[in-house]
Amino acid sequence: MARADRWGQIVPRKRNPDRVVHYRLPTEVVFGAGTVAQLGSRLVEMGLSRPLVVTDRGVRDAGIVEKVLASLEGSGMRAAVFDGVESDPTTRVVEGIRDRLREEGCDSVVGVGGGSPMDAAKAAAALATNPGSPLEYVGRDKVRSDPLPTVAVPTTAGTGSEVTMFSVLIDSDSGSKVSIGDTRIMPRLALLDPELTLGLPEHLTAVTGIDALSHAVESYGSVWSHPIAEGLALRAIELVGECLRPAVAAGSNRAARRGMLMASLVSELAANSTRLGIAHALAIPVGARHHVPHGMAVALLLPHVVAFNEAADPDRYARIARALGAAEGEGAGRAMERLNYDIGIKDRLSGWGVGEDDLPGLAELAMKSDNVQANPRVAGEEELVAVLKAAL
Amino acid sequence: MARADRWGQIVPRKRNPDRVVHYRLPTEVVFGAGTVAQLGSRLVEMGLSRPLVVTDRGVRDAGIVEKVLASLEGSGMRAAVFDGVESDPTTRVVEGIRDRLREEGCDSVVGVGGGSPMDAAKAAAALATNPGSPLEYVGRDKVRSDPLPTVAVPTTAGTGSEVTMFSVLIDSDSGSKVSIGDTRIMPRLALLDPELTLGLPEHLTAVTGIDALSHAVESYGSVWSHPIAEGLALRAIELVGECLRPAVAAGSNRAARRGMLMASLVSELAANSTRLGIAHALAIPVGARHHVPHGMAVALLLPHVVAFNEAADPDRYARIARALGAAEGEGAGRAMERLNYDIGIKDRLSGWGVGEDDLPGLAELAMKSDNVQANPRVAGEEELVAVLKAAL
Ligand SMILES: [Fe+2]
Ligand SMILES: [Fe+2]
Repeated sequence: MARADRWGQIVPRKRNPDRVVHYRLPTEVVFGAGTVAQLGSRLVEMGLSRPLVVTDRGVRDAGIVEKVLASLEGSGMRAAVFDGVESDPTTRVVEGIRDRLREEGCDSVVGVGGGSPMDAAKAAAALATNPGSPLEYVGRDKVRSDPLPTVAVPTTAGTGSEVTMFSVLIDSDSGSKVSIGDTRIMPRLALLDPELTLGLPEHLTAVTGIDALSHAVESYGSVWSHPIAEGLALRAIELVGECLRPAVAAGSNRAARRGMLMASLVSELAANSTRLGIAHALAIPVGARHHVPHGMAVALLLPHVVAFNEAADPDRYARIARALGAAEGEGAGRAMERLNYDIGIKDRLSGWGVGEDDLPGLAELAMKSDNVQANPRVAGEEELVAVLKAAL
Repeated sequence: MARADRWGQIVPRKRNPDRVVHYRLPTEVVFGAGTVAQLGSRLVEMGLSRPLVVTDRGVRDAGIVEKVLASLEGSGMRAAVFDGVESDPTTRVVEGIRDRLREEGCDSVVGVGGGSPMDAAKAAAALATNPGSPLEYVGRDKVRSDPLPTVAVPTTAGTGSEVTMFSVLIDSDSGSKVSIGDTRIMPRLALLDPELTLGLPEHLTAVTGIDALSHAVESYGSVWSHPIAEGLALRAIELVGECLRPAVAAGSNRAARRGMLMASLVSELAANSTRLGIAHALAIPVGARHHVPHGMAVALLLPHVVAFNEAADPDRYARIARALGAAEGEGAGRAMERLNYDIGIKDRLSGWGVGEDDLPGLAELAMKSDNVQANPRVAGEEELVAVLKAAL
């Protein structure tokens, strides 16, 4: 007899203990306060001299582009700047960046910002050396020629895009989310300077922080997890447990900012090779259909997804709970609910305009994600609707 | 007032919480039972067609070279074989391999075996594209041109050489140990097939396993450790705690073999970027002067080094103890002593011909290693002598 809980039958997804593990990190990682000043000399070392800085207006207004340009100029480089990346970059904007790269005769791309500028930079770098539109590279391993060398400089602590093989874009024609997944588009260098995240507003710190946590939790839970990812993911969860509340409470807390930027990096070093779970499978359509920013969508869903998954692998989720600093006897799901609350995320899906009638459609879309196959508890549309309902 | 213990004053080495972290893994990792069969097709993917297989007679006699050649032939490659690597490879043997590479017109090197064949393969690949003798590249980052592409296929679970930037050699003229350290010599691909370790004798399983453990423990303890390394190292320690006793007890235990090969890999993924500690600083001269194999030298020293270090960072060592599966209240050093005993390592330094008079000389040599600077407890010659004495 299968056991059951309030979500229905508990069906753990089988793990294959003999699964082949594939781990690859073509990106060199440099992490530390003030390291943005190394950008120019690092490009020189790579034999590059004419970068295009890809960013958005918010990053520019925060004075971060100035620091980037100062380092490039210090190494004798005249950099071009494209600061028109929108918050969910479209294929059209990527084509625009590609055109700028050509007009300016650039030999490299520096993505500076949150996930959006970094994803746009990665896709544009690929498009500069591969023909056609971004849509031709949607899917897995479609990029034929090596992209222009790319450097990623994150200014938020959450997406981990600086070390991922993914670029998530909006198809300008259909409006739907598409994703290019290819180890070729991984940045050559990730330059992580926690000083750049000091000015991040409270709310953005909170939701990007939960996004980082979700990558670690879903990677650790994934049935495709393996010891490399497990070690990294648990350490990232600990860092979030220690640093997210303080980073939200006082943005100028340098140790907390360092910890969160590290957590974001380390969680993605884990997740790249394991895929995620149903929090991400659901967050993508929720974000796209109801205009919920990615971090917020994940934050709304994660406690419920974890509560759903816990029963399928109690030992694994007990370790997550411990790493996060859960109270004795408090489950991982409950600990994440409390974390959300403490950092000021008190929203619910309904507050973002999601109604009960929307749930089957969202679940249906979510089922198409391969993240569903990685989730440690078997979930069909019915279960996904139940999880969404809990977050409503 | 500084505290003291039986070793003398306890002086923890300061950690710099703002230290810049640099992490790099140019090696693609493929891990799983049967993956040695992928060798040929992986080389084809890299555009290579004429490899030299570098190995030793023991590996050949174990029938492993046959499997390697079968995969290469299956992909239409005619491979050359050099099976003359000795157990501590000399610079002369590396020059011999370099000459073979040239005579045979090879475009790649496949190192198959324990640390010795892999280290010899890495050094020879560099020498094939860089002029002069191996001694010109001793030190850090001296290799100018990219070596021939190298694939590492480990057949023991301990050195982690498949993912390190080091090649340890014996200078054929002076007889002393030298080391080439350069990210350029890291293998392009590490192909880890736990099936190849099934035939490893009990004793070799034990000492190489403790070597892997020591890399994880010393990396975790290192004052240059960082969250990426910490997560990896703790997970590797857990794997050793779970798998080393069973792997020694029954060499045919596939799960234990898989766990130990993974532990060896993961511990070195951590240690590459943190350096080690005084167990390795001491093991190198002990090994060289008294002809103690590296794993054995480490095994004799590690429990005492850990007992010495524990007091300087009790929280960190309590985590090591827990990860290793220590009994309640049992320290990390004691747990390692018990592990040694359980897997049949009952030797002491004196049994290997080390006398009390040798200790000051060994300590003096050890002090030259930069691993001393990474050790979490400040140790001078006096302390090193005390640790050696405990292991006598
Ligand atoms: Fe995410
Ligand atoms: Fe070692």
